[in-house]
Amino acid sequence: MAHDLPDRRAQDLAAGLGELGCRALLVVAQSESDPDLAPFLGARAHLGAALLVAPREGRPRLAYLNPMEREEAAATGLLLVTPEELETLRAAREAPEPAAYLAWVMSRALAASGVAPGRVALAGLAPAGEIHCACAALARHGWEWVAGNELVRLVRKRKTAPELAAIRRAADATVDVMRALAARLAAAARVTGPGGDGGELWLDGRPLTVGRLRAEAARLLADRGVEQPHGNILAPGGEGGVPHSAGSDGRPLRAGEPLIVDLFPRGAWRERPLMFADCTRTLCAGEPPAALARAHAAVLRALAAARALAAPGARGWDLQEAVCLTFEEAGYATPLRQPGTTTGYVHNLGHGIGYELHELPIFRKVAGAEGVLAEGDVFTLEPGLYDPAAGYGVRLEDLCYLGPDGLEILTPLPYDLDPRRWTLDP
Amino acid sequence: MAHDLPDRRAQDLAAGLGELGCRALLVVAQSESDPDLAPFLGARAHLGAALLVAPREGRPRLAYLNPMEREEAAATGLLLVTPEELETLRAAREAPEPAAYLAWVMSRALAASGVAPGRVALAGLAPAGEIHCACAALARHGWEWVAGNELVRLVRKRKTAPELAAIRRAADATVDVMRALAARLAAAARVTGPGGDGGELWLDGRPLTVGRLRAEAARLLADRGVEQPHGNILAPGGEGGVPHSAGSDGRPLRAGEPLIVDLFPRGAWRERPLMFADCTRTLCAGEPPAALARAHAAVLRALAAARALAAPGARGWDLQEAVCLTFEEAGYATPLRQPGTTTGYVHNLGHGIGYELHELPIFRKVAGAEGVLAEGDVFTLEPGLYDPAAGYGVRLEDLCYLGPDGLEILTPLPYDLDPRRWTLDP
Repeated sequence: MAHDLPDRRAQDLAAGLGELGCRALLVVAQSESDPDLAPFLGARAHLGAALLVAPREGRPRLAYLNPMEREEAAATGLLLVTPEELETLRAAREAPEPAAYLAWVMSRALAASGVAPGRVALAGLAPAGEIHCACAALARHGWEWVAGNELVRLVRKRKTAPELAAIRRAADATVDVMRALAARLAAAARVTGPGGDGGELWLDGRPLTVGRLRAEAARLLADRGVEQPHGNILAPGGEGGVPHSAGSDGRPLRAGEPLIVDLFPRGAWRERPLMFADCTRTLCAGEPPAALARAHAAVLRALAAARALAAPGARGWDLQEAVCLTFEEAGYATPLRQPGTTTGYVHNLGHGIGYELHELPIFRKVAGAEGVLAEGDVFTLEPGLYDPAAGYGVRLEDLCYLGPDGLEILTPLPYDLDPRRWTLDP
Repeated sequence: MAHDLPDRRAQDLAAGLGELGCRALLVVAQSESDPDLAPFLGARAHLGAALLVAPREGRPRLAYLNPMEREEAAATGLLLVTPEELETLRAAREAPEPAAYLAWVMSRALAASGVAPGRVALAGLAPAGEIHCACAALARHGWEWVAGNELVRLVRKRKTAPELAAIRRAADATVDVMRALAARLAAAARVTGPGGDGGELWLDGRPLTVGRLRAEAARLLADRGVEQPHGNILAPGGEGGVPHSAGSDGRPLRAGEPLIVDLFPRGAWRERPLMFADCTRTLCAGEPPAALARAHAAVLRALAAARALAAPGARGWDLQEAVCLTFEEAGYATPLRQPGTTTGYVHNLGHGIGYELHELPIFRKVAGAEGVLAEGDVFTLEPGLYDPAAGYGVRLEDLCYLGPDGLEILTPLPYDLDPRRWTLDP
């Protein structure tokens, strides 16, 4: 049975191409996991370089370049353009240079899909120099190229049922592992002796380091069928004061200091579709300093404020502003009044998520649909407060689905700083 | 201490830029794992979108876009161009559309690195439509873009010591897991009863399926610190007759039929540098049909012929031709006389490997350095024979390093079809 785009997506794509004045979308991908190609594929595929042509009217076609991938290409359920139709053997002889080869297969894939030279939206991730030179060469033969990546991002903003199910599976694995890491910290916090009194945390007779906890996270996530293509963040104390610092493996964890645990794994390869999840908690084994406890409470209030506003039609920027105001009332700096601040609230509220870790919607001050929440969106809400000089960062991040019944938290976990309180949770 | 390119790489890059008539290389990357950016980074980094400018003369600079990544960017040891120098906040206001934003940061990153408008080589993986439109816009301001991806591929063809060490670690994990899978098949082959007599293989009281073996492979690889961003191939019988078919999880394994096991994992995220390994064996539990045994022996001879020729200065195509002749003498079709054949030997002999699964050298009929073996190369040699109608594929793939002492096999494993013979190996 042929695989087609869900009706809604096909309509969104056709409408978007119409607005851009384009006769087709062309996706140039390096593999099946290209985020602009993957939404068009069926249940599974194992492909190298491939192209997808979606005419404004008519069904999309997958052009694959390697004859050995014929069974995999067929399994996608898409109409196919074969390497023979693309004349890849002739291209390898007559146009072996990478940009010329690319131009060759692009123009033949379009022609085989019934698209005549004209205005085409271009998407996918491609070798930058080669795709530019290929496009420039084809422009001399009547092709006009429009940036189409944002169109595909908009089309895939509303998740399909299989996409949502895959995100749920990745989120469930993340929740499990976050609980397991909290339990390890709770166990370390109960240790008396070397780590019991404001000093280093110990576990199983050894100091508990960032690296040890990170190795456990990797093993536990792998056991649950997810991988970490972008790694993770386990950032203690002042390292957590800079939001994207991954944390130093050799660093021992200490009682009374915060640890930001930010996990953002993706389903392992056989999982289809291949979706990310994302969740952050901040934990502190032992007694937290007053400034940390105060910041944690403020972040929790900000998260509640954001959740209360997260409804279809709300702009991401409205939520960001509300969170900024909450923080400013509590005396913290925010980018609303102090753009570029590196203490207080220093980033945006969240991001859409799906085939990529960062997708639409966005929470910046923009005018278009890319900044408006809608039913079917999956996104993070992740307020935080940071003071690297004072030795802390606090971030609480939930993965959210805006469904027909309102906002659903896909990462239901305690928010407590103290990991010992997590085990009291039902 | 500042991190610079090894002298040899810096020289290769400068020479390549000179040949292209370019004053600099610009890499546009989506993350630290971009294969054109990664070779320039030091021991670790956790970056989102970033650019690298390598002037023909002078040290390379990393331009990062997110102020929250300042610590990670500093850890690369490269000279930096900060978001403040790029004026990213102003860009977000004045040029929010993705291609315009990209053009903004590209031109500012070049300017901040002392590169005036002119001819520049462009590399990295970028959103296809956006990079083309950004380049076209900048061309109106005196920038001329040359495809630079192949230059970076050539520069990274010769591995550095840390790169080789990382490939060795990934290869060691692959070898371990291949042995473990062979042991599982050997155990299944010894089972009497339902699977003992040309029927399905059983293990632990259940049929042994492709899916079960694939799940074990994933768990065992994760335990050894590698991930599978491109999955793997476990293709039995006729599925293995099409080289890139990944194999169907529900398929039970049977005695007397071949199973192609092709593992191509990459180091897990904290590993730096992040390198692939690649190895294939073909296994048959139980008595192999005569045609399979004959094909396996021919593939083994072809692999020996390829290894004997793999020396610095040899063209990949020379090895491919020698392998084709070996197969033709044994009566198998090859692409040398039958381009596009789908039975017999149907593909190329191998590929370079490193930050990407497929790199230089290549084994196709090309004239340039991309097709010539040289000291420092790491590549696969993987002859195979296929007959989907007859229900078999056979491939034997070794990962090879061409070092100062000649060819070294990084995946030392038995070649036997029968997994029961593997355990006899020392």
